[in-house]
Amino acid sequence: MRISFVGAGNVAWHLAQALEHAGHHIVEVFSRDTRNARRLVNKLYDTTVVPDLDFAESAAELIILAVADDALDEVMQRLVLPEECILVHTSGTKTLEELERLVGIYSDVPAHTGVFYPLQTFSREVPIQFTEVPLCIEATEPATESILIKLAQDLSNVVYIMSSEERAIMHVAAVFACNFTNHLFAISKRMLDAEHLEFDLLKPLIRETVRKALEAPDPAMVQTGPARRGDHQIIERHLDYLERYPAYQGLYEVLTESIMKK
Amino acid sequence: MRISFVGAGNVAWHLAQALEHAGHHIVEVFSRDTRNARRLVNKLYDTTVVPDLDFAESAAELIILAVADDALDEVMQRLVLPEECILVHTSGTKTLEELERLVGIYSDVPAHTGVFYPLQTFSREVPIQFTEVPLCIEATEPATESILIKLAQDLSNVVYIMSSEERAIMHVAAVFACNFTNHLFAISKRMLDAEHLEFDLLKPLIRETVRKALEAPDPAMVQTGPARRGDHQIIERHLDYLERYPAYQGLYEVLTESIMKK
Repeated sequence: MRISFVGAGNVAWHLAQALEHAGHHIVEVFSRDTRNARRLVNKLYDTTVVPDLDFAESAAELIILAVADDALDEVMQRLVLPEECILVHTSGTKTLEELERLVGIYSDVPAHTGVFYPLQTFSREVPIQFTEVPLCIEATEPATESILIKLAQDLSNVVYIMSSEERAIMHVAAVFACNFTNHLFAISKRMLDAEHLEFDLLKPLIRETVRKALEAPDPAMVQTGPARRGDHQIIERHLDYLERYPAYQGLYEVLTESIMKK
Repeated sequence: MRISFVGAGNVAWHLAQALEHAGHHIVEVFSRDTRNARRLVNKLYDTTVVPDLDFAESAAELIILAVADDALDEVMQRLVLPEECILVHTSGTKTLEELERLVGIYSDVPAHTGVFYPLQTFSREVPIQFTEVPLCIEATEPATESILIKLAQDLSNVVYIMSSEERAIMHVAAVFACNFTNHLFAISKRMLDAEHLEFDLLKPLIRETVRKALEAPDPAMVQTGPARRGDHQIIERHLDYLERYPAYQGLYEVLTESIMKK
Protein backbone atom coordinates (compact mmCIF):
# COMPACT_ATOMS: atom_id res chain seq x y z
CA MET A 1 0.00 0.00 0.00
CA ARG A 2 1.02 3.62 -0.53
CA ILE A 3 0.81 5.31 2.83
CA SER A 4 1.36 8.87 4.09
CA PHE A 5 1.79 10.04 7.64
CA VAL A 6 0.55 13.17 9.33
CA GLY A 7 2.69 13.44 12.46
CA ALA A 8 6.25 12.26 13.07
CA GLY A 9 6.15 11.56 16.81
CA ASN A 10 6.78 8.30 18.61
CA VAL A 11 3.85 6.42 17.07
CA ALA A 12 4.69 7.49 13.50
CA TRP A 13 8.39 6.76 14.12
CA HIS A 14 7.78 3.09 14.90
CA LEU A 15 4.67 2.49 12.78
CA ALA A 16 6.10 3.95 9.55
CA GLN A 17 9.27 1.88 9.81
CA ALA A 18 7.33 -1.28 10.62
CA LEU A 19 5.01 -0.73 7.65
CA GLU A 20 7.90 -0.16 5.27
CA HIS A 21 9.62 -3.23 6.65
CA ALA A 22 6.43 -5.20 5.90
CA GLY A 23 6.71 -4.13 2.24
CA HIS A 24 4.55 -1.02 2.11
CA HIS A 25 5.60 2.30 0.61
CA ILE A 26 5.65 5.32 2.88
CA VAL A 27 5.06 8.12 0.38
CA GLU A 28 5.03 11.26 2.51
CA VAL A 29 5.48 12.51 6.03
CA PHE A 30 4.13 15.80 7.37
CA SER A 31 4.99 17.24 10.73
CA ARG A 32 4.53 20.67 12.33
CA ASP A 33 8.16 20.24 13.30
CA THR A 34 9.97 19.70 10.00
CA ARG A 35 13.06 18.37 11.76
CA ASN A 36 11.00 15.53 13.17
CA ALA A 37 9.64 14.74 9.73
CA ARG A 38 13.14 14.79 8.26
CA ARG A 39 14.50 12.56 11.01
CA LEU A 40 11.83 9.94 10.25
CA VAL A 41 12.21 10.23 6.48
CA ASN A 42 15.95 9.58 6.88
CA LYS A 43 15.01 6.20 8.28
CA LEU A 44 12.84 5.35 5.26
CA TYR A 45 13.64 4.32 1.71
CA ASP A 46 11.66 6.53 -0.65
CA THR A 47 9.70 9.10 1.28
CA THR A 48 9.20 12.86 0.94
CA VAL A 49 8.83 15.46 3.67
CA VAL A 50 5.81 17.57 2.71
CA PRO A 51 5.59 21.20 3.82
CA ASP A 52 1.83 21.45 4.38
CA LEU A 53 -1.36 19.41 4.76
CA ASP A 54 -2.43 19.62 1.13
CA PHE A 55 -2.54 15.97 0.01
CA ALA A 56 -4.82 16.67 -2.99
CA GLU A 57 -2.20 15.41 -5.45
CA SER A 58 -0.84 12.70 -3.15
CA ALA A 59 -0.44 9.15 -4.42
CA ALA A 60 -1.31 7.82 -0.94
CA GLU A 61 -4.12 5.29 -0.66
CA LEU A 62 -4.00 5.55 3.14
CA ILE A 63 -3.33 8.59 5.30
CA ILE A 64 -2.46 7.86 8.91
CA LEU A 65 -3.10 10.63 11.42
CA ALA A 66 -0.48 10.00 14.11
CA VAL A 67 -0.96 13.24 16.03
CA ALA A 68 -1.82 14.11 19.62
CA ASP A 69 -5.52 13.98 20.45
CA ASP A 70 -5.75 17.71 21.00
CA ALA A 71 -4.16 18.45 17.60
CA LEU A 72 -6.69 16.39 15.62
CA ASP A 73 -9.26 19.13 15.16
CA GLU A 74 -6.73 21.68 13.89
CA VAL A 75 -5.13 19.14 11.55
CA MET A 76 -8.53 18.26 10.08
CA GLN A 77 -9.29 21.94 9.44
CA ARG A 78 -6.23 22.21 7.23
CA LEU A 79 -6.07 18.73 5.72
CA VAL A 80 -6.83 18.49 1.99
CA LEU A 81 -7.55 14.89 1.03
CA PRO A 82 -6.94 13.09 -2.28
CA GLU A 83 -9.84 11.26 -3.91
CA GLU A 84 -10.85 7.82 -2.64
CA CYS A 85 -8.40 7.56 0.20
CA ILE A 86 -8.65 5.84 3.53
CA LEU A 87 -8.13 8.14 6.51
CA VAL A 88 -7.39 6.66 9.94
CA HIS A 89 -6.44 8.01 13.32
CA THR A 90 -4.24 6.17 15.81
CA SER A 91 -5.85 7.40 19.01
CA GLY A 92 -7.04 5.25 21.89
CA THR A 93 -9.56 7.81 23.03
CA LYS A 94 -10.99 9.50 19.93
CA THR A 95 -14.04 7.78 18.46
CA LEU A 96 -14.44 6.83 14.82
CA GLU A 97 -17.57 8.99 14.76
CA GLU A 98 -15.54 12.04 15.69
CA LEU A 99 -13.21 11.52 12.73
CA GLU A 100 -16.20 11.10 10.40
CA ARG A 101 -17.71 14.26 11.81
CA LEU A 102 -14.49 16.23 11.22
CA VAL A 103 -14.26 14.97 7.64
CA GLY A 104 -17.90 15.98 7.15
CA ILE A 105 -17.32 19.49 8.48
CA TYR A 106 -13.95 20.37 7.02
CA SER A 107 -13.27 18.28 3.91
CA ASP A 108 -14.61 18.89 0.41
CA VAL A 109 -13.61 15.35 -0.51
CA PRO A 110 -15.12 12.34 1.28
CA ALA A 111 -12.88 9.68 2.85
CA HIS A 112 -13.14 6.07 4.01
CA THR A 113 -12.60 6.55 7.71
CA GLY A 114 -11.16 4.15 10.21
CA VAL A 115 -9.07 3.65 13.35
CA PHE A 116 -5.67 1.98 13.49
CA TYR A 117 -4.80 2.01 17.18
CA PRO A 118 -1.62 0.34 18.48
CA LEU A 119 -2.24 -0.51 22.15
CA GLN A 120 1.31 0.23 23.29
CA THR A 121 3.44 3.09 24.52
CA PHE A 122 6.34 4.05 22.29
CA SER A 123 9.65 5.77 22.93
CA ARG A 124 11.83 6.75 20.03
CA GLU A 125 14.95 5.21 21.60
CA VAL A 126 13.40 1.88 22.50
CA PRO A 127 13.06 -0.63 19.64
CA ILE A 128 9.67 -2.30 19.60
CA GLN A 129 8.68 -5.83 18.58
CA PHE A 130 5.68 -4.91 16.46
CA THR A 131 4.53 -8.52 16.11
CA GLU A 132 3.57 -8.37 19.81
CA VAL A 133 1.75 -5.03 19.71
CA PRO A 134 -2.05 -5.41 19.82
CA LEU A 135 -3.55 -3.47 16.92
CA CYS A 136 -7.16 -2.37 17.35
CA ILE A 137 -9.01 -1.78 14.11
CA GLU A 138 -12.30 -0.08 13.35
CA ALA A 139 -13.79 1.24 10.12
CA THR A 140 -16.99 2.79 8.85
CA GLU A 141 -17.29 0.43 5.88
CA PRO A 142 -16.65 -3.34 5.79
CA ALA A 143 -14.38 -3.01 2.74
CA THR A 144 -12.18 -0.51 4.59
CA GLU A 145 -12.19 -2.74 7.65
CA SER A 146 -10.87 -5.66 5.57
CA ILE A 147 -8.08 -3.57 4.11
CA LEU A 148 -7.03 -2.29 7.55
CA ILE A 149 -7.13 -5.76 9.09
CA LYS A 150 -4.95 -7.13 6.33
CA LEU A 151 -2.50 -4.28 6.83
CA ALA A 152 -2.49 -4.80 10.61
CA GLN A 153 -1.82 -8.50 10.15
CA ASP A 154 1.25 -7.64 8.10
CA LEU A 155 2.64 -6.09 11.29
CA SER A 156 1.25 -7.91 14.28
CA ASN A 157 0.03 -11.29 15.48
CA VAL A 158 -2.54 -9.61 17.70
CA VAL A 159 -5.15 -7.84 15.59
CA TYR A 160 -8.54 -6.96 17.05
CA ILE A 161 -11.68 -5.43 15.60
CA MET A 162 -12.70 -3.08 18.36
CA SER A 163 -15.55 -0.58 18.46
CA SER A 164 -15.02 2.95 19.76
CA GLU A 165 -17.01 2.04 22.89
CA GLU A 166 -14.78 -0.97 23.55
CA ARG A 167 -11.68 1.14 22.96
CA ALA A 168 -12.94 3.67 25.50
CA ILE A 169 -13.36 0.92 28.11
CA MET A 170 -9.93 -0.43 27.26
CA HIS A 171 -8.62 3.05 27.90
CA VAL A 172 -10.22 3.29 31.36
CA ALA A 173 -8.73 -0.11 32.19
CA ALA A 174 -5.33 1.07 30.96
CA VAL A 175 -5.51 4.17 33.14
CA PHE A 176 -5.93 1.89 36.17
CA ALA A 177 -3.32 -0.68 35.13
CA CYS A 178 -0.70 1.70 33.73
CA ASN A 179 -1.11 5.38 34.63
CA PHE A 180 -2.19 4.79 38.23
CA THR A 181 0.39 2.04 38.69
CA ASN A 182 3.14 4.38 37.53
CA HIS A 183 1.90 6.96 40.04
CA LEU A 184 2.10 4.41 42.87
CA PHE A 185 5.73 3.70 41.90
CA ALA A 186 6.39 7.45 42.03
CA ILE A 187 4.82 7.72 45.50
CA SER A 188 6.85 4.76 46.69
CA LYS A 189 10.05 6.37 45.45
CA ARG A 190 9.15 9.70 47.04
CA MET A 191 8.66 8.07 50.46
CA LEU A 192 11.95 6.16 50.22
CA ASP A 193 13.84 9.25 49.02
CA ALA A 194 12.61 11.15 52.08
CA GLU A 195 14.29 8.54 54.31
CA HIS A 196 17.40 8.19 52.15
CA LEU A 197 16.43 4.64 51.25
CA GLU A 198 17.02 3.51 47.68
CA PHE A 199 14.07 2.86 45.38
CA ASP A 200 16.41 0.49 43.52
CA LEU A 201 16.16 -1.90 46.48
CA LEU A 202 12.46 -2.34 45.76
CA LYS A 203 12.80 -2.98 42.03
CA PRO A 204 13.42 -6.74 42.11
CA LEU A 205 10.28 -7.13 44.25
CA ILE A 206 8.25 -4.91 41.92
CA ARG A 207 9.40 -6.83 38.84
CA GLU A 208 8.56 -10.18 40.41
CA THR A 209 5.18 -8.92 41.64
CA VAL A 210 4.25 -7.72 38.16
CA ARG A 211 5.50 -10.94 36.58
CA LYS A 212 3.35 -13.01 38.94
CA ALA A 213 0.30 -10.79 38.44
CA LEU A 214 0.49 -11.07 34.66
CA GLU A 215 1.15 -14.81 34.60
CA ALA A 216 -1.61 -15.70 37.06
CA PRO A 217 -5.06 -16.50 35.63
CA ASP A 218 -6.22 -13.41 37.56
CA PRO A 219 -4.07 -10.86 39.45
CA ALA A 220 -6.64 -11.03 42.27
CA MET A 221 -5.49 -14.62 42.87
CA VAL A 222 -1.94 -13.54 43.75
CA GLN A 223 -2.88 -10.51 45.85
CA THR A 224 -0.72 -10.30 48.99
CA GLY A 225 -0.10 -7.77 51.73
CA PRO A 226 -1.68 -6.56 54.99
CA ALA A 227 -5.03 -5.60 53.40
CA ARG A 228 -5.39 -9.05 51.86
CA ARG A 229 -4.50 -10.78 55.15
CA GLY A 230 -6.73 -8.41 57.12
CA ASP A 231 -3.72 -7.52 59.26
CA HIS A 232 -5.20 -4.50 61.08
CA GLN A 233 -2.20 -4.09 63.34
CA ILE A 234 0.16 -3.47 60.41
CA ILE A 235 -2.40 -1.31 58.63
CA GLU A 236 -2.73 0.91 61.70
CA ARG A 237 1.03 1.15 61.98
CA HIS A 238 1.27 2.17 58.30
CA LEU A 239 -1.48 4.77 58.68
CA ASP A 240 0.32 6.21 61.71
CA TYR A 241 3.51 6.49 59.71
CA LEU A 242 1.63 8.12 56.82
CA GLU A 243 0.39 10.95 59.08
CA ARG A 244 3.28 12.91 57.59
CA TYR A 245 1.86 12.45 54.07
CA PRO A 246 -1.88 13.19 54.41
CA ALA A 247 -2.49 12.72 50.67
CA TYR A 248 -0.79 9.32 50.61
CA GLN A 249 -2.59 8.35 53.81
CA GLY A 250 -5.91 8.93 52.04
CA LEU A 251 -4.79 6.79 49.10
CA TYR A 252 -3.61 4.06 51.45
CA GLU A 253 -7.00 4.02 53.13
CA VAL A 254 -9.14 3.79 50.00
CA LEU A 255 -6.92 1.20 48.34
CA THR A 256 -6.77 -0.92 51.49
CA GLU A 257 -10.55 -0.73 51.83
CA SER A 258 -10.96 -1.70 48.19
CA ILE A 259 -8.75 -4.79 48.61
CA MET A 260 -10.54 -5.80 51.81
CA LYS A 261 -13.96 -5.53 50.20
CA LYS A 262 -13.25 -8.40 47.85
CA MET B 1 28.10 -22.27 58.99
CA ARG B 2 25.79 -24.86 60.51
CA ILE B 3 22.26 -23.59 60.04
CA SER B 4 18.80 -24.86 61.04
CA PHE B 5 15.45 -23.71 59.73
CA VAL B 6 12.17 -23.28 61.55
CA GLY B 7 9.59 -23.21 58.77
CA ALA B 8 9.65 -24.88 55.37
CA GLY B 9 7.54 -22.45 53.33
CA ASN B 10 8.54 -20.47 50.27
CA VAL B 11 11.24 -18.41 51.98
CA ALA B 12 12.89 -21.44 53.64
CA TRP B 13 12.61 -23.41 50.39
CA HIS B 14 14.74 -20.93 48.43
CA LEU B 15 16.95 -19.63 51.22
CA ALA B 16 18.02 -23.07 52.52
CA GLN B 17 18.98 -24.27 49.06
CA ALA B 18 20.85 -21.05 48.30
CA LEU B 19 22.77 -21.28 51.59
CA GLU B 20 23.73 -24.90 50.98
CA HIS B 21 24.77 -23.99 47.46
CA ALA B 22 27.02 -21.29 48.96
CA GLY B 23 28.78 -23.96 51.02
CA HIS B 24 26.88 -23.88 54.30
CA HIS B 25 25.48 -26.90 56.09
CA ILE B 26 21.73 -27.02 56.67
CA VAL B 27 21.55 -29.21 59.77
CA GLU B 28 17.84 -29.39 60.54
CA VAL B 29 14.45 -28.31 59.27
CA PHE B 30 11.34 -28.07 61.41
CA SER B 31 7.85 -27.44 60.06
CA ARG B 32 4.37 -27.77 61.53
CA ASP B 33 3.63 -29.62 58.32
CA THR B 34 6.17 -32.50 58.28
CA ARG B 35 5.55 -33.13 54.58
CA ASN B 36 6.79 -29.63 53.82
CA ALA B 37 9.90 -30.22 55.91
CA ARG B 38 10.52 -33.55 54.18
CA ARG B 39 10.05 -31.99 50.75
CA LEU B 40 12.71 -29.38 51.51
CA VAL B 41 15.10 -31.86 53.14
CA ASN B 42 14.91 -34.00 50.00
CA LYS B 43 16.43 -31.08 48.13
CA LEU B 44 19.34 -30.82 50.58
CA TYR B 45 22.47 -32.90 51.09
CA ASP B 46 22.77 -33.78 54.78
CA THR B 47 19.77 -32.45 56.65
CA THR B 48 17.39 -33.92 59.23
CA VAL B 49 13.69 -33.30 59.65
CA VAL B 50 13.15 -32.60 63.36
CA PRO B 51 9.81 -33.43 65.01
CA ASP B 52 9.63 -30.57 67.50
CA LEU B 53 11.11 -27.19 68.42
CA ASP B 54 13.62 -28.52 70.96
CA PHE B 55 16.99 -27.45 69.54
CA ALA B 56 18.83 -27.80 72.90
CA GLU B 57 21.17 -30.45 71.50
CA SER B 58 21.35 -28.97 68.01
CA ALA B 59 24.73 -28.38 66.38
CA ALA B 60 23.34 -25.29 64.65
CA GLU B 61 25.21 -22.00 65.06
CA LEU B 62 22.37 -20.12 63.38
CA ILE B 63 18.63 -20.74 63.58
CA ILE B 64 16.53 -19.04 60.91
CA LEU B 65 12.88 -18.43 61.72
CA ALA B 66 11.19 -18.53 58.33
CA VAL B 67 7.61 -18.57 59.54
CA ALA B 68 4.56 -16.37 58.98
CA ASP B 69 4.45 -13.21 61.11
CA ASP B 70 1.44 -14.40 63.07
CA ALA B 71 3.13 -17.72 63.92
CA LEU B 72 6.22 -16.11 65.46
CA ASP B 73 4.85 -15.76 68.99
CA GLU B 74 3.68 -19.37 69.20
CA VAL B 75 6.96 -20.67 67.78
CA MET B 76 8.95 -18.68 70.33
CA GLN B 77 6.86 -20.09 73.17
CA ARG B 78 7.90 -23.62 72.22
CA LEU B 79 11.41 -23.01 70.89
CA VAL B 80 14.26 -24.43 73.00
CA LEU B 81 17.54 -22.86 71.96
CA PRO B 82 21.07 -24.32 72.05
CA GLU B 83 23.80 -22.36 73.84
CA GLU B 84 25.48 -19.43 72.06
CA CYS B 85 23.41 -19.50 68.90
CA ILE B 86 22.35 -16.72 66.59
CA LEU B 87 18.58 -16.47 66.10
CA VAL B 88 17.16 -14.45 63.20
CA HIS B 89 13.75 -13.87 61.74
CA THR B 90 13.11 -13.25 58.04
CA SER B 91 10.16 -10.88 58.37
CA GLY B 92 9.79 -7.51 56.67
CA THR B 93 7.44 -6.21 59.33
CA LYS B 94 8.55 -7.65 62.69
CA THR B 95 11.11 -5.54 64.54
CA LEU B 96 14.36 -6.85 65.97
CA GLU B 97 13.18 -5.61 69.37
CA GLU B 98 10.16 -7.88 69.20
CA LEU B 99 12.36 -10.92 68.66
CA GLU B 100 14.59 -9.90 71.59
CA ARG B 101 11.50 -9.44 73.73
CA LEU B 102 10.18 -12.90 72.85
CA VAL B 103 13.56 -14.49 73.62
CA GLY B 104 13.56 -12.63 76.94
CA ILE B 105 10.08 -13.85 77.85
CA TYR B 106 10.14 -17.44 76.68
CA SER B 107 13.72 -18.70 76.48
CA ASP B 108 15.88 -19.93 79.36
CA VAL B 109 18.93 -19.62 77.14
CA PRO B 110 19.95 -16.23 75.70
CA ALA B 111 20.53 -15.80 71.96
CA HIS B 112 22.31 -13.38 69.64
CA THR B 113 19.32 -11.94 67.80
CA GLY B 114 19.12 -10.52 64.32
CA VAL B 115 17.09 -10.06 61.17
CA PHE B 116 17.83 -11.67 57.81
CA TYR B 117 15.16 -10.27 55.51
CA PRO B 118 15.13 -11.08 51.79
CA LEU B 119 13.25 -8.26 50.06
CA GLN B 120 11.58 -10.46 47.46
CA THR B 121 8.46 -12.54 46.98
CA PHE B 122 9.05 -16.28 46.53
CA SER B 123 7.03 -19.02 44.88
CA ARG B 124 8.14 -22.60 45.25
CA GLU B 125 7.84 -23.28 41.50
CA VAL B 126 9.72 -20.21 40.33
CA PRO B 127 13.53 -20.43 40.50
CA ILE B 128 15.09 -17.30 41.95
CA GLN B 129 18.40 -15.63 41.17
CA PHE B 130 19.54 -15.07 44.76
CA THR B 131 22.46 -12.87 43.73
CA GLU B 132 19.87 -10.22 42.77
CA VAL B 133 17.74 -10.44 45.93
CA PRO B 134 18.32 -7.51 48.31
CA LEU B 135 19.12 -8.90 51.77
CA CYS B 136 18.39 -6.57 54.69
CA ILE B 137 20.43 -7.31 57.79
CA GLU B 138 20.06 -6.12 61.36
CA ALA B 139 21.53 -7.42 64.62
CA THR B 140 21.65 -6.53 68.29
CA GLU B 141 25.44 -6.93 68.56
CA PRO B 142 28.10 -5.76 66.09
CA ALA B 143 29.75 -9.23 66.08
CA THR B 144 26.45 -10.85 65.06
CA GLU B 145 25.90 -8.18 62.44
CA SER B 146 29.32 -8.97 60.90
CA ILE B 147 28.55 -12.69 60.74
CA LEU B 148 25.14 -12.09 59.14
CA ILE B 149 26.55 -9.65 56.60
CA LYS B 150 29.22 -12.13 55.60
CA LEU B 151 26.60 -14.83 55.24
CA ALA B 152 24.34 -12.55 53.20
CA GLN B 153 27.23 -11.63 50.90
CA ASP B 154 27.73 -15.32 50.18
CA LEU B 155 24.26 -15.25 48.60
CA SER B 156 23.62 -11.82 47.19
CA ASN B 157 25.31 -8.82 45.63
CA VAL B 158 22.83 -6.50 47.31
CA VAL B 159 23.31 -6.57 51.08
CA TYR B 160 22.00 -3.75 53.26
CA ILE B 161 22.25 -2.99 56.96
CA MET B 162 18.74 -1.77 57.68
CA SER B 163 17.19 -0.79 61.00
CA SER B 164 13.73 -2.01 61.97
CA GLU B 165 12.39 1.52 61.40
CA GLU B 166 13.85 1.64 57.90
CA ARG B 167 12.47 -1.83 57.17
CA ALA B 168 9.02 -0.63 58.26
CA ILE B 169 9.20 2.30 55.84
CA MET B 170 10.42 -0.01 53.09
CA HIS B 171 7.33 -2.12 53.80
CA VAL B 172 4.93 0.83 53.44
CA ALA B 173 6.62 1.71 50.15
CA ALA B 174 6.30 -1.90 49.00
CA VAL B 175 2.59 -1.92 49.83
CA PHE B 176 2.15 1.04 47.46
CA ALA B 177 4.43 -0.25 44.72
CA CYS B 178 3.45 -3.94 44.85
CA ASN B 179 0.25 -4.77 46.75
CA PHE B 180 -1.72 -1.76 45.50
CA THR B 181 -0.35 -2.14 42.00
CA ASN B 182 -1.47 -5.76 41.90
CA HIS B 183 -4.92 -4.63 43.02
CA LEU B 184 -5.10 -2.10 40.17
CA PHE B 185 -4.29 -4.88 37.71
CA ALA B 186 -7.11 -6.93 39.25
CA ILE B 187 -9.57 -4.03 38.88
CA SER B 188 -8.48 -3.52 35.31
CA LYS B 189 -9.10 -7.19 34.53
CA ARG B 190 -12.48 -7.13 36.26
CA MET B 191 -13.66 -4.20 34.12
CA LEU B 192 -12.46 -5.82 30.90
CA ASP B 193 -14.01 -9.18 31.83
CA ALA B 194 -17.37 -7.46 32.32
CA GLU B 195 -17.23 -6.27 28.71
CA HIS B 196 -15.78 -9.51 27.34
CA LEU B 197 -12.54 -7.78 26.47
CA GLU B 198 -9.31 -9.67 27.09
CA PHE B 199 -6.95 -8.54 29.84
CA ASP B 200 -4.20 -10.19 27.75
CA LEU B 201 -4.53 -7.33 25.27
CA LEU B 202 -3.36 -4.90 27.92
CA LYS B 203 -0.35 -6.92 29.06
CA PRO B 204 2.21 -5.66 26.51
CA LEU B 205 1.31 -2.09 27.50
CA ILE B 206 1.55 -2.89 31.21
CA ARG B 207 4.95 -4.55 30.77
CA GLU B 208 6.32 -1.62 28.79
CA THR B 209 4.90 0.91 31.27
CA VAL B 210 6.56 -0.87 34.19
CA ARG B 211 9.81 -1.23 32.29
CA LYS B 212 9.86 2.50 31.56
CA ALA B 213 8.94 3.43 35.13
CA LEU B 214 11.76 1.33 36.59
CA GLU B 215 14.39 2.48 34.08
CA ALA B 216 13.59 6.18 34.39
CA PRO B 217 15.50 8.19 37.01
CA ASP B 218 12.08 8.72 38.62
CA PRO B 219 8.74 7.11 37.66
CA ALA B 220 7.14 10.58 38.05
CA MET B 221 9.16 11.67 34.99
CA VAL B 222 7.43 9.15 32.71
CA GLN B 223 3.90 9.65 34.07
CA THR B 224 1.35 9.74 31.24
CA GLY B 225 -2.42 9.69 30.94
CA PRO B 226 -5.39 12.07 31.18
CA ALA B 227 -4.63 13.16 34.78
CA ARG B 228 -1.07 14.07 33.85
CA ARG B 229 -2.24 16.01 30.77
CA GLY B 230 -5.05 17.64 32.71
CA ASP B 231 -7.47 16.29 30.11
CA HIS B 232 -10.73 17.01 31.97
CA GLN B 233 -12.91 15.95 29.05
CA ILE B 234 -11.54 12.38 29.10
CA ILE B 235 -11.58 12.27 32.90
CA GLU B 236 -15.27 13.23 32.92
CA ARG B 237 -16.01 10.58 30.32
CA HIS B 238 -14.20 7.95 32.41
CA LEU B 239 -16.03 8.98 35.59
CA ASP B 240 -19.35 8.73 33.72
CA TYR B 241 -18.48 5.24 32.57
CA LEU B 242 -17.42 4.28 36.11
CA GLU B 243 -20.89 5.15 37.48
CA ARG B 244 -21.52 1.41 37.25
CA TYR B 245 -18.60 0.69 39.62
CA PRO B 246 -18.98 3.22 42.46
CA ALA B 247 -15.98 1.79 44.36
CA TYR B 248 -13.70 2.06 41.32
CA GLN B 249 -15.06 5.51 40.56
CA GLY B 250 -13.90 6.64 44.01
CA LEU B 251 -10.45 5.19 43.42
CA TYR B 252 -10.27 6.84 40.00
CA GLU B 253 -11.07 10.19 41.57
CA VAL B 254 -8.52 10.10 44.38
CA LEU B 255 -5.75 8.74 42.17
CA THR B 256 -6.46 11.30 39.44
CA GLU B 257 -6.45 14.08 42.02
CA SER B 258 -3.19 12.81 43.45
CA ILE B 259 -1.50 12.81 40.02
CA MET B 260 -2.84 16.30 39.25
CA LYS B 261 -1.56 17.74 42.52
CA LYS B 262 2.07 17.25 41.55
